[in-house]
Amino acid sequence: MPLVRIDVSSTLPPVRVAAVADSVHQALVATVDVPQADRFQVITAHDRSGLRIDPQFLDIQRSTEALIIAVTFRRGRTDDQKRNLYRQIVERASVAADMRPEDIMVVLTENTLSDWSFGNELAQYASAN
Amino acid sequence: MPLVRIDVSSTLPPVRVAAVADSVHQALVATVDVPQADRFQVITAHDRSGLRIDPQFLDIQRSTEALIIAVTFRRGRTDDQKRNLYRQIVERASVAADMRPEDIMVVLTENTLSDWSFGNELAQYASAN
Amino acid sequence: MPLVRIDVSSTLPPVRVAAVADSVHQALVATVDVPQADRFQVITAHDRSGLRIDPQFLDIQRSTEALIIAVTFRRGRTDDQKRNLYRQIVERASVAADMRPEDIMVVLTENTLSDWSFGNELAQYASAN
Repeated sequence: MPLVRIDVSSTLPPVRVAAVADSVHQALVATVDVPQADRFQVITAHDRSGLRIDPQFLDIQRSTEALIIAVTFRRGRTDDQKRNLYRQIVERASVAADMRPEDIMVVLTENTLSDWSFGNELAQYASAN
Repeated sequence: MPLVRIDVSSTLPPVRVAAVADSVHQALVATVDVPQADRFQVITAHDRSGLRIDPQFLDIQRSTEALIIAVTFRRGRTDDQKRNLYRQIVERASVAADMRPEDIMVVLTENTLSDWSFGNELAQYASAN
Repeated sequence: MPLVRIDVSSTLPPVRVAAVADSVHQALVATVDVPQADRFQVITAHDRSGLRIDPQFLDIQRSTEALIIAVTFRRGRTDDQKRNLYRQIVERASVAADMRPEDIMVVLTENTLSDWSFGNELAQYASAN
C-alpha cells in the first residue's frame, strides 16, 4: 500500500524516469513486503525553478539530475527494512536508469491500515470490527 | 483543516475533475466534521507516464480514468468515520462526475492541531498555552 | 531535513515565487534548527482550476495569490517552534515577495529520523544500531 510521489527534473529523459519508477517499485516489493501489483505512483517533471535541491548538503555532491522520491505507507517497517529499501532503490536505479547514488533522495511518511481505500469505497485493510 | 491533493489523468475532462473535487469536499463536510468553508485543494493533471496505477490490484478493475485522492487532516477520526468518508466520496463522485467506484483511490495522512496555519501567521487551532 | 512542497498560482510572477521559496527556507533555518544547506523544495504552479482555496475560511480574506506551503520534517518541534516558524515565513515572505499574510497557508507533517535518505543509499540520521 505505498503511494509514491517522484519529482524529477524535466531534463531527465522519460525513459530514465520510467526506469526510476520501476526501480522504486521493485525495491518496495523486495524489501518491505509490498505486493507486486500494489503500484500507485505519481510522477511530476519540473523545470529548474520547480526543484530546489541543495547540491552539497551532508557532503553529498548532487547533480542537476537529482530527484526526490516520497513514499507514504503504513506504519510498521523497521529501521533495517528502511535501510534496505534505500539501498535497493539506489542499486536498482543506478543499474536500470543510470542514476548516480548521490542524486537519489528518499523520504518516508507513515500512516495506518484504515487510511487506505484502493477503490470501491472500502477500507480494504481495516479490520471489520 | 484538510489539505487535499487530487492527481488525475489529463484525459479526464475538466468539468468532471471539478465535480470530483466538489464531491471530495462535500464528503469531508458530511462525514468528518470539516466546515463548509474549510476547502484547500491542489489538483494536478498528469499524462499517461505521470500516473502509474495498477489496473487490477486487489481484483479491482481500474480504468484509464483512475485517480488518487490524498487527504491530510488532524488526527482523531475513527475507522468508521474514515469508512464513511470513502463511501461518501465514491457515491458523490459517481453521481456528480460519472466516476466508476473502482477508479477512486483515497489515502489519508494525519497530523496535529498545531500543524496548521491558515494564514496571518497564526496556528489557529493550537491551544494558546 | 525538511521536504517542502509549495503550490502557487501560475499568475504569481516567478521572481516572487522564488522569493517565497527562499523565505520559507530561511524561516526553517531561523526557527527549527534546519541547517542552511538542508534545502529540498518542490514548487508547482497551477492554473485557476488546480488550486481551490477558500477565500474566507476563518474570516481570513484570501486573494488569488493565496498559496499552500506543505512541510514534512522529523517529529520533535514544539508548538512554540511551529508558531515561530509560521510567523517567520509570513514576515519574510511579506518583505521579500510582497505576499499578503492572509495568503500564506502552512501545513506540517512529521516523520522520524530513519525516514530520510539524503542520497548514497544511506539513512544518514538513523542510529547505527
